[in-house]
Amino acid sequence: MDWEIVEQRLMNLLNGGKHSELRGALMMLNEVDIARFMETLDKEKLLLTFRILPKDVSADVFAYMSAEQKQTLVESIGDNEIRSLIEDMFLDDTVDFLEELPANVVKRVLQNTSESKRNLINQFLRYPENSAGSLMTIEYMELKRGLTVREAMSAIKKTGLDKETIYTLYIIDQARHLIGTIALRTLILADDEVLIDSLMDTNIISVNTMDDQEKVAETVREYDLMTIPVVDNEHRLVGIITADDVMDVIEDENTEDFEKMAALTPAEDEYLKMTPWQLAKNRLPWLLLLATVAIVTGMIITNYETLLEGTGMGIILTACIPMLMDTGGNCGAQASTLMIRGIALGEIEFKDIGKALWKEVRVGLIIGTVLFIYTFVRVYLINHGSLAVCFVVSISLFCTVLMSKSLGCVLPLTAKRLGFDPALMASPLITTIVDMASLIVYFTIATSVLGV
Amino acid sequence: MDWEIVEQRLMNLLNGGKHSELRGALMMLNEVDIARFMETLDKEKLLLTFRILPKDVSADVFAYMSAEQKQTLVESIGDNEIRSLIEDMFLDDTVDFLEELPANVVKRVLQNTSESKRNLINQFLRYPENSAGSLMTIEYMELKRGLTVREAMSAIKKTGLDKETIYTLYIIDQARHLIGTIALRTLILADDEVLIDSLMDTNIISVNTMDDQEKVAETVREYDLMTIPVVDNEHRLVGIITADDVMDVIEDENTEDFEKMAALTPAEDEYLKMTPWQLAKNRLPWLLLLATVAIVTGMIITNYETLLEGTGMGIILTACIPMLMDTGGNCGAQASTLMIRGIALGEIEFKDIGKALWKEVRVGLIIGTVLFIYTFVRVYLINHGSLAVCFVVSISLFCTVLMSKSLGCVLPLTAKRLGFDPALMASPLITTIVDMASLIVYFTIATSVLGV
Repeated sequence: MDWEIVEQRLMNLLNGGKHSELRGALMMLNEVDIARFMETLDKEKLLLTFRILPKDVSADVFAYMSAEQKQTLVESIGDNEIRSLIEDMFLDDTVDFLEELPANVVKRVLQNTSESKRNLINQFLRYPENSAGSLMTIEYMELKRGLTVREAMSAIKKTGLDKETIYTLYIIDQARHLIGTIALRTLILADDEVLIDSLMDTNIISVNTMDDQEKVAETVREYDLMTIPVVDNEHRLVGIITADDVMDVIEDENTEDFEKMAALTPAEDEYLKMTPWQLAKNRLPWLLLLATVAIVTGMIITNYETLLEGTGMGIILTACIPMLMDTGGNCGAQASTLMIRGIALGEIEFKDIGKALWKEVRVGLIIGTVLFIYTFVRVYLINHGSLAVCFVVSISLFCTVLMSKSLGCVLPLTAKRLGFDPALMASPLITTIVDMASLIVYFTIATSVLGV
Repeated sequence: MDWEIVEQRLMNLLNGGKHSELRGALMMLNEVDIARFMETLDKEKLLLTFRILPKDVSADVFAYMSAEQKQTLVESIGDNEIRSLIEDMFLDDTVDFLEELPANVVKRVLQNTSESKRNLINQFLRYPENSAGSLMTIEYMELKRGLTVREAMSAIKKTGLDKETIYTLYIIDQARHLIGTIALRTLILADDEVLIDSLMDTNIISVNTMDDQEKVAETVREYDLMTIPVVDNEHRLVGIITADDVMDVIEDENTEDFEKMAALTPAEDEYLKMTPWQLAKNRLPWLLLLATVAIVTGMIITNYETLLEGTGMGIILTACIPMLMDTGGNCGAQASTLMIRGIALGEIEFKDIGKALWKEVRVGLIIGTVLFIYTFVRVYLINHGSLAVCFVVSISLFCTVLMSKSLGCVLPLTAKRLGFDPALMASPLITTIVDMASLIVYFTIATSVLGV
């Protein structure tokens, strides 16, 4: 059924005060869709709908609501309701939610949380943003070494219901060190009296609490994992990260790269939710910086133009400047994009710089040659330039292509090596650098060949 | 342990002919890492190592090897070995593998496959590339409606071992229609005699075999799923897609967007594996196209420059051209990147075009005003321009900012609406368009204000 029809139907029930029917209709939907419906409601209707939901569903729905709606709701409900909501939510969802709230609301929520839960939450809030620790959940199923399959299954039946996933079971020793994992399927298919130690996989892929989320995503993707355990510096198990959260990390990291590569400070929120002031703030510093550098480019042009003014060839040479600058920028952007992407996917490392540069030089030679011929013929036929002028323009373009391909290859890899984000070495910066360099080459060749 | 040490140790065992020790050492590794080790081996050693592995492990390792190594191996082993390899592999891995092979090798592989498996493979190979059908696996666990929990568990124990995941169970009716799902955890925690029909979740999120992989990724991400069922047009269950494959789809789609946004034809392979010719082929058409358009930009400059040459203000005006063009391009790239990314993540749709444009206009007013003041002061102090010249440059920049922000917002959304890929409306194209438009604005304002 179309979402708009569903929404209209729910709205009619809500407006008509048919609460039990609304409850029945909502229970036909997924939690994500219930949250989506509640997104459009005003404070009063939001509260009403939230209270109509069964308690176990409402915590899940709450986790999917937007930050604004969550805050509206928390500010409207009583202390008891807050307490039971927090107890029913997964810890990682609670922490995400608290990170979005203003401090006074956080305080009220924490006051209405049991002490043990509050301690856990505080511990989580101390992990650096974007670390594995801030991403993990503690709702995993752990088993002590030495249990039999029967004992393990009975432990799972007893406590498994509250866990976010029980499909991978984590085996720990007395000191809580992670010593192995077992897939639930292995356990189900095994004989009751076998020791889990003999079934477990000791070849553990894990991350550290302080690892960056980018490393988490890379590891999960490389090994095709559904969950990954998180350990502390002593290799003690402290949490797990699930594939659905990793997918969000991947998209966030990609969005950040897209933004940096377009000279934007990464945004904290969705585009449509940001004010023009916030958007302008993320764009202005880069525009001012790049505009300032472009002044130098302008100075190079005027400096040489006065030189060429008397020769009668100035007009043709000026006409080719945009083509030269644009092509240089585009060539640089092509090379740097492939490098930045290759680095992000772990396909290219700094040690490959020689191989990559040699490849770009050869690509540059091919493209440079084609563009040389194309430009030579074009300037001759369209601009009616002398053979000398045609040569000056074409050979400058050839040099520009080679130079911009090499810069586009070397800069991102060097940035990575020096600990900067390679995504900053993208189109806008490279275009600006190549603009200057190509004009210097252009005018140097022009003055020497044309003998001005 | 460091990977290089591991690799060295394995190499020593292999070169020393210590085959059982090598086998023991390899079994301490994950399949992904075994494949990584085998990547560096020559044909003879590759074959040797592959044959050392236990049969059930070798099929998994094979799935993680590179296309080149897979082909080398298949061409070296006998028909019997091919047969047993294919029988042990998951169907989706087999199909991926066949799609990478040259036709004559595919033929040999298919000849050595059981008829039932061959029919399945052929059916899979017929799904369009990048469709849900081409991405799915058929190794899922289905249960007929009407079973009890006890019967369901015994079915899982009997056939579950061959399934890629058994953590979500799919309930079908007599005609194979998908009517519900049950999490394995629910089944484990339920009483033996309960009917599965009463436990199943009938609110199914699924995709169609012909849906694009982008839609699959979006759905899985939106609903935080670990697996998603794939149904045909009659809503009959035909396969499932798992989260690890969806992660690869997400990265592939992102890479494609990055490439298109940098005027590159998307590549079929990793950067370091492509020849300079292949790389040049993906870049040249766009460079030629954009260079041709840039000629027009050059003609605009020369056309007006002759007009301005006598006035003595030509030099200052020319000096500001790169700044004007670069800033316009950067502003357009910023806006278009946010649109393209928003569309890709499903946050912005065509119906939001009014809201987005109004936002960009306000952002443009803020940024335009700041740049107006900055440029006015700068041209006055640095270039010693008259107040009229300062005004011409600054107001042109203001108009360019507004124009490029609006274009950067409207073009990707319109492209999407018309069924084109919004990623094509990115920096390179917008820069070229904005270059022309801003110069026309610039010279029009200049001639009218300066009264030439």
